[in-house]
Amino acid sequence: MTLSTSWFVSVQLPTPTLENNMADIDRLSLYIQETLKVPYVQVAKNLFNILPKLLRDHNYHIRCLLFSKEDLWIVLAVFPPTGPAHLFGAAIDLGSTQMALSLVDLITGEILQTKHMDNSQIPFGADVLTRIHHAQTLEGQAELKALVLKQLQTEMQTLCDSLEKNINDIYLVTMAGNTIMTHLFLGLETRWLIREPYIPVVNRLGTFSASDVGFSLHPNAQIFIFPNIGSYFGGDVISGILAVGMACQKDISVLIDIGTNAEVVLGNQDWLVACAGAAGPAMENGVSEIGMRAMVGAIDYVKIHPQTLSFEYTTIGDVPPLGICGSGIIDLAAQLFINGLIDIRGKLVASKCPSCIQEKNGLLTLELVPANKSGTGQPIELTQVDLDSLIRSKAAMYTILETITHSVEMSPEQICRFYIAGTFGAYIRPDSAISLGMLPDLPRDIFKVVGNTSLAGAVRLLIDRDAMAEIVKIQQKITYIELNVNQDFMNRFSAAKFLPHTDTSRFPSVHWTS
Amino acid sequence: MTLSTSWFVSVQLPTPTLENNMADIDRLSLYIQETLKVPYVQVAKNLFNILPKLLRDHNYHIRCLLFSKEDLWIVLAVFPPTGPAHLFGAAIDLGSTQMALSLVDLITGEILQTKHMDNSQIPFGADVLTRIHHAQTLEGQAELKALVLKQLQTEMQTLCDSLEKNINDIYLVTMAGNTIMTHLFLGLETRWLIREPYIPVVNRLGTFSASDVGFSLHPNAQIFIFPNIGSYFGGDVISGILAVGMACQKDISVLIDIGTNAEVVLGNQDWLVACAGAAGPAMENGVSEIGMRAMVGAIDYVKIHPQTLSFEYTTIGDVPPLGICGSGIIDLAAQLFINGLIDIRGKLVASKCPSCIQEKNGLLTLELVPANKSGTGQPIELTQVDLDSLIRSKAAMYTILETITHSVEMSPEQICRFYIAGTFGAYIRPDSAISLGMLPDLPRDIFKVVGNTSLAGAVRLLIDRDAMAEIVKIQQKITYIELNVNQDFMNRFSAAKFLPHTDTSRFPSVHWTS
Repeated sequence: MTLSTSWFVSVQLPTPTLENNMADIDRLSLYIQETLKVPYVQVAKNLFNILPKLLRDHNYHIRCLLFSKEDLWIVLAVFPPTGPAHLFGAAIDLGSTQMALSLVDLITGEILQTKHMDNSQIPFGADVLTRIHHAQTLEGQAELKALVLKQLQTEMQTLCDSLEKNINDIYLVTMAGNTIMTHLFLGLETRWLIREPYIPVVNRLGTFSASDVGFSLHPNAQIFIFPNIGSYFGGDVISGILAVGMACQKDISVLIDIGTNAEVVLGNQDWLVACAGAAGPAMENGVSEIGMRAMVGAIDYVKIHPQTLSFEYTTIGDVPPLGICGSGIIDLAAQLFINGLIDIRGKLVASKCPSCIQEKNGLLTLELVPANKSGTGQPIELTQVDLDSLIRSKAAMYTILETITHSVEMSPEQICRFYIAGTFGAYIRPDSAISLGMLPDLPRDIFKVVGNTSLAGAVRLLIDRDAMAEIVKIQQKITYIELNVNQDFMNRFSAAKFLPHTDTSRFPSVHWTS
Repeated sequence: MTLSTSWFVSVQLPTPTLENNMADIDRLSLYIQETLKVPYVQVAKNLFNILPKLLRDHNYHIRCLLFSKEDLWIVLAVFPPTGPAHLFGAAIDLGSTQMALSLVDLITGEILQTKHMDNSQIPFGADVLTRIHHAQTLEGQAELKALVLKQLQTEMQTLCDSLEKNINDIYLVTMAGNTIMTHLFLGLETRWLIREPYIPVVNRLGTFSASDVGFSLHPNAQIFIFPNIGSYFGGDVISGILAVGMACQKDISVLIDIGTNAEVVLGNQDWLVACAGAAGPAMENGVSEIGMRAMVGAIDYVKIHPQTLSFEYTTIGDVPPLGICGSGIIDLAAQLFINGLIDIRGKLVASKCPSCIQEKNGLLTLELVPANKSGTGQPIELTQVDLDSLIRSKAAMYTILETITHSVEMSPEQICRFYIAGTFGAYIRPDSAISLGMLPDLPRDIFKVVGNTSLAGAVRLLIDRDAMAEIVKIQQKITYIELNVNQDFMNRFSAAKFLPHTDTSRFPSVHWTS
């Protein structure tokens, strides 16, 4: 099913006469301008010699693929009324750790396949600051750019090959990433991003020729890169806002995208405020040694039996566990707290389960999986240090949420929808997060776990031309709030470091054993 | 002196702060958008890595070269506040017979030099229909395109070399030509131009990357090609309207551009009507054997002594005459008529000057220059056939003018300014043309001989960014009237075939000997 707002449109032009003797290209431009109510239409120059015959061969009935550069609409390709057989777009989530790529059929609007891959820049720094350091030289900058460009080109090729599609039938690429990642992708200077007053080279990136960027796809292929708001708030979140549609809703929503940073957006169709803050590594790859990304072998769900205090868990792929991912950690900590195995400060209570909590190397340590049941041959354990790190992360998350709602003089109860995004968020159980006091204690049905919204927004733009205007609207409307880490913030943060919170009245639905 | 509306602008951006932390590229775009009040500004992608350092090195004070693609404004180059040393534009009049090229200093607005050259497509057909025939095959089309492209590239190179300038400092090209010539230049199909209902591939050509078109200039150089109105009314006349400024004047003006075709535009700031019609070869290269273009050796002025009936003349370059150009022919015919050597039907009256009018090969023939005084060793003569051709041409010119004024229910007396353009028009004496009844009998001071307005309009666009909006306005406002060669037209044409006209009361200032 194609959306009526697809970039792929059917066109029946009026036949020229002596009275209506407008030129072919102008005739097509004007028709699109008038029927789609867009300000300015341009036809790709290499269609100038294709269009006249095509129009006359098909009685002025053709199909066109459009795309836009804000107000400028471009006709990228023209086809007979029955064609073409293939027309693809690629949506890319340019994550600093993991990237995702969806191949989309632009005719049907269907996602043909989605691939995930590690960002090939990781060897130059798992954290982006190290990559920025590497990009201080022109060679380093070019090297990082070339790496990810080549990787994406290869991944698109491989994806097309595996589906027996031709990469030259890719006409559109949409890409969402944070500000640093898009700067590195385009080979732009990153030095000013991290120095006060934190100025990006460019926020409103817009539409480029894909070949200008370095991709080898259809000669007329265009790439749109989602705009940034600032150095610390990038196009990945703009894409997320687009994906969940909160900028078109009357109701007030929150979107949180949890990674090393937590990006939070609050608002509706009339206003949007956003902030970003460090949520701590606990939120990205889990914690310390046992933490791992949500992949095969990761424990993604944990339950503790209230009477026996035995651990139940599931792993992704249903194999012996190799570690524990973010959502598993949240479950585990919530279950430990509810069953009294950690106290309101997040400290392990060894007396509650002497068999599973023991001191090791001077640290209280919880054994979740014994060595003989793990996939690594080593026990899977959680230390007090891991827990302390998690508590700081959850407190940061809650404080950021509290700060942003406070900034618009709202209480959490006024939030109608709560979108939880990010690879981490894809598996999270809101109930567990609320038990820890990481998320506010709101009716569970307002929480929507929405997965990779950065990718989803990029996919939406490929199949829905109305999305372009919405992106411009989001970008213009959003107010970025600098998170002032002042005494007020620190007081809130300290109060949020308890489980679920110093002010337990905020979490009436959470019940625990003390 | 630079116009305040130059494409070359000085910019002082606000310095970024934590409160005003807009990205560099966005900062520049927004500044230009706001100060120039333009809808959308884009910075050339290859400036993204140049701008940040340039801004910081010069305290956010820089200079930019802009250009536009209708509503989309492009920043093509950025310079320090003292730079650059050189910045050039090339204006091209793409004539089917003769082309003209001006190199313009974009900083001072000065024309550095103008060159004229024969169109290198002439060997494939002096008239454009033959060229269109040659362009029926893809090879022929490519061949004609390559010829003129290469010629213009070479001429720009030669011009730059002779002035010790670098061709890579050419950033802008503006080009005006008729519809067929611009189609051939871009390698577009011309077959539909000459078949009913006469549809061009494209009218609104707009701005391209110069390298896309095939020119090798500055990598960011842009080319603007003046829009066509239809197959028979091209960008050369739009450029002419721009050059004389009639679309900005309250008073009503006429612009006539005389060549093989006569293009006539009537109107003011509120409306414009245009038509084009065959004026006959007499108007282009003079007539038959003695006709030549206005170049060295051409008789460009003729006077007959009323008493002695002796001929006075001047030649271009003051050398022995080789032939006679258009303005010379008009002078000659007017003088012959005023002195009674031709009658009101344009027929030679041998009895008035038996020494100079004699029958040769069965045709009455006037000897203007005897063999011993000519530069060719042959006498320069005018036959009755030549005169008949001229009379048809002048009648066509007058009838077209009459038709267009009639179409808006005006009389010629309401015309406040009368611009005479074209290479032919560059030397014309309005008095002679009026004596023949080719132009209406209006006060002589309203006639302005304005030369090559196609080139002048292209030059104006290089130095005045307001011209772009004016071109769009002209193109949108102009109404093209199809010259219906009906009985009415034929009656008018027959009446105009007399000297000065059947209705002599229309020419009160013309006195002749009968």
